[in-house]
Amino acid sequence: MLKVRLPLGACARSWKSVRMASCGMARRNPLENKVALVTASTDGIGFAIARRLAQDGAHVVVSSRKQQNVDRAVAALQGEGLSVSGTVCHVGKAEDRERLVATILDINVKAAALLTKAVVPEMAKRGGGSIVIVSSIGAYSPFPSLGPYNVSKTALLGLTKNLAIELAEWNVRVNCLAPGLIKTSFSRMLWEDQARQESIKAAMQIKRIGKPEDCAGIVSFLCSEDASYITGETVVVAGGTQSHL
Amino acid sequence: MLKVRLPLGACARSWKSVRMASCGMARRNPLENKVALVTASTDGIGFAIARRLAQDGAHVVVSSRKQQNVDRAVAALQGEGLSVSGTVCHVGKAEDRERLVATILDINVKAAALLTKAVVPEMAKRGGGSIVIVSSIGAYSPFPSLGPYNVSKTALLGLTKNLAIELAEWNVRVNCLAPGLIKTSFSRMLWEDQARQESIKAAMQIKRIGKPEDCAGIVSFLCSEDASYITGETVVVAGGTQSHL
Amino acid sequence: MLKVRLPLGACARSWKSVRMASCGMARRNPLENKVALVTASTDGIGFAIARRLAQDGAHVVVSSRKQQNVDRAVAALQGEGLSVSGTVCHVGKAEDRERLVATILDINVKAAALLTKAVVPEMAKRGGGSIVIVSSIGAYSPFPSLGPYNVSKTALLGLTKNLAIELAEWNVRVNCLAPGLIKTSFSRMLWEDQARQESIKAAMQIKRIGKPEDCAGIVSFLCSEDASYITGETVVVAGGTQSHL
Amino acid sequence: MLKVRLPLGACARSWKSVRMASCGMARRNPLENKVALVTASTDGIGFAIARRLAQDGAHVVVSSRKQQNVDRAVAALQGEGLSVSGTVCHVGKAEDRERLVATILDINVKAAALLTKAVVPEMAKRGGGSIVIVSSIGAYSPFPSLGPYNVSKTALLGLTKNLAIELAEWNVRVNCLAPGLIKTSFSRMLWEDQARQESIKAAMQIKRIGKPEDCAGIVSFLCSEDASYITGETVVVAGGTQSHL
Repeated sequence: MLKVRLPLGACARSWKSVRMASCGMARRNPLENKVALVTASTDGIGFAIARRLAQDGAHVVVSSRKQQNVDRAVAALQGEGLSVSGTVCHVGKAEDRERLVATILDINVKAAALLTKAVVPEMAKRGGGSIVIVSSIGAYSPFPSLGPYNVSKTALLGLTKNLAIELAEWNVRVNCLAPGLIKTSFSRMLWEDQARQESIKAAMQIKRIGKPEDCAGIVSFLCSEDASYITGETVVVAGGTQSHL
Repeated sequence: MLKVRLPLGACARSWKSVRMASCGMARRNPLENKVALVTASTDGIGFAIARRLAQDGAHVVVSSRKQQNVDRAVAALQGEGLSVSGTVCHVGKAEDRERLVATILDINVKAAALLTKAVVPEMAKRGGGSIVIVSSIGAYSPFPSLGPYNVSKTALLGLTKNLAIELAEWNVRVNCLAPGLIKTSFSRMLWEDQARQESIKAAMQIKRIGKPEDCAGIVSFLCSEDASYITGETVVVAGGTQSHL
Repeated sequence: MLKVRLPLGACARSWKSVRMASCGMARRNPLENKVALVTASTDGIGFAIARRLAQDGAHVVVSSRKQQNVDRAVAALQGEGLSVSGTVCHVGKAEDRERLVATILDINVKAAALLTKAVVPEMAKRGGGSIVIVSSIGAYSPFPSLGPYNVSKTALLGLTKNLAIELAEWNVRVNCLAPGLIKTSFSRMLWEDQARQESIKAAMQIKRIGKPEDCAGIVSFLCSEDASYITGETVVVAGGTQSHL
Repeated sequence: MLKVRLPLGACARSWKSVRMASCGMARRNPLENKVALVTASTDGIGFAIARRLAQDGAHVVVSSRKQQNVDRAVAALQGEGLSVSGTVCHVGKAEDRERLVATILDINVKAAALLTKAVVPEMAKRGGGSIVIVSSIGAYSPFPSLGPYNVSKTALLGLTKNLAIELAEWNVRVNCLAPGLIKTSFSRMLWEDQARQESIKAAMQIKRIGKPEDCAGIVSFLCSEDASYITGETVVVAGGTQSHL
């Protein structure tokens, strides 16, 4: 999954209407004057991130592969008074995409790399930008039976470092988020059964399963000017079940 | 260096005057209703952190070992309209302190551990809190000729993880910041000479030496509710010269 | 690059001739009674590893994609009195291989995963085995302009952990080696120019560029019974330029 | 705990009797011609390391704080035909030592640093040497209720990197070992109860608790010429319960 500021045709109008925020206001609406593309953002962590970036002042472009999911998410966020538009995002042409879909490694790593390359020229024109990639604690402590998923998430840690180096000259920062167990449809089998959920929580330091919103604040922070000296870095958001030395 | 929310006698008045912020306002003044003790905060990174936490709504207690430095810093921040008070902070009795001062390992690690233990009961009474420890990239890539400093900074990474586990039951989160080269009096010899500074910057991805303010935003973020699922974690702020896989 | 014990048809005879080594001898010929497949082993690091494993008592199957390179390497090692045979190793059918070759990520990660899966049943029949994957310090500190290479090497660190978990039940251990700058044809542009080589060495702790043999001892060790409690782990061999905390 | 080649008065005779091993023999007795000091080596992991280094050809100086323990260990190893002598090792004068003993951080970190500094001049005279420090997986994943122990073990990871840099000019390499759960008297409470031991093993990849001997082979390897391009590095020996990315 890749989060990136992107000027798609779909959001051309909002793009033009961006006003310059005064410096003193920056802190109140830390993302004012920004356009945010959030991929895979019609549900779960992506949706929480999209909402938060919009609440913090960005115009958000919700993106996914299915039109109806995009429409639903856009309507929901607009209903909250947020500045949001939507786009169906294909990585390349249909036949290419089919091949990309062939493996998780391709989807998670190559699509992220390709999408980044696609949006950087536009970021460069605007004087810079910020990319936040979403990895997982499975990158560090593999989830059983999810080998390709885990390996792709480890690869994203390396992709973050590599893109940070490559894109520094365009004033584009690249950082990464490694969520732990977050209550989404993806992780349903881990928390649906109440007994299993309780046993998982018992082993945690912070005795709750994370919410998608727990991942949203850090993304907004990493996109803001406050993080302007942070690049190439990965932050674990896992209630203490995993952390960096 | 240890950053911690602490109710010292010195700030008893402000403590009482804390108002409940409405939930909707939390984002505008993310630290409203909080009291922050910032140690070693009369200069450099500590001072920038103290100012930022106050700007974000906290009442800040500036602390250092010298009265005149505390007075100067408090006056400066009050002059900006911020809610700040000061205290001279001794770790233990004078004779103990002298022995503590004996080694950098003691100052940086034991003092941090002791101070944490001292403030946690008060945090617990208030329903929780957040501690941010300041390590350094020297913890990962040792600075030449600064062995004891480097090792103490590595130890702080471990202290962060240990305190996060121990204090989770009190709803106290513990995180850590590892700054790179920041323009302070401590690092003066690295940037004072213009030629040396240029050669250092040339090797960086983000071609500038960090400012103390670059470390302040992340501390405010880690203290805020937005970071409530992040504990035991260390974030590198180094312009890409060092980063976590 | 993947190093793995493998019973290919090509080495069926040697396989049968393996004698049981007495326990007391294990230390003198720590790999006696073992068959080692070393991929990409006609040159550089792979060749040094193949030679060392044979010197330590294993029957070694040298493998590469070109028959003439395999023949040359086998002849050289047999000339030293070592027990060696060769095989041309194709990953899948030609057309599949062409597609695999399409990207470095595929070659380095998927081929390693596929090859491992292919040899594990045979290892399981023999009661266990040991796999050593070769990553690079580029996995941690990306080499400029080698993005896909670097990311694939990071992915191998994750693959190591995942395979270690998956294969533990078959008594197969999986570890990884991350070499630094080693004098091979691959790294020629870094050491060919004498001035450049001197400037690189000046920045090192151990003031020499590594030799392929520097990577061979650790592989032999990781394959031996001495490493029977080590799995999922990566060891950096880089003269101190990179190391794990 | 610190393992170090050291010429104490106690082993002066053996020192003189060291013969030059021929190059071809190096592999058979990889530590021939070496003198090894192993601290805390009358029991558990230290004892297993001492025995292994002696089996691999080194003259070993067993060391501990109690004369009777040293005598017992020396007698046991000499009874196996190994070249071993003993010394009671005090870190500094008694009163200093008492203060050192005051905290685990002091014992584990400062004593290791001091002892290293003490032996390096002798190593330098001999043209180089190798130091192996013993940390723990508690350095990465803190053991509950063992905070100071855990933090000291994290600090040792940093000490390893720092000493590697400082001592490279004397041709002294410094590496580190991080054992997992090893069956020693120190970890008795974790494996003494059979039910507890079974539940711990069930969570492991390699379904057994480690033996002290599992830590001995890697120490011998790191001290040998085979590891001459490895310095500043830490290797986890934990049956897969913890590993480096």
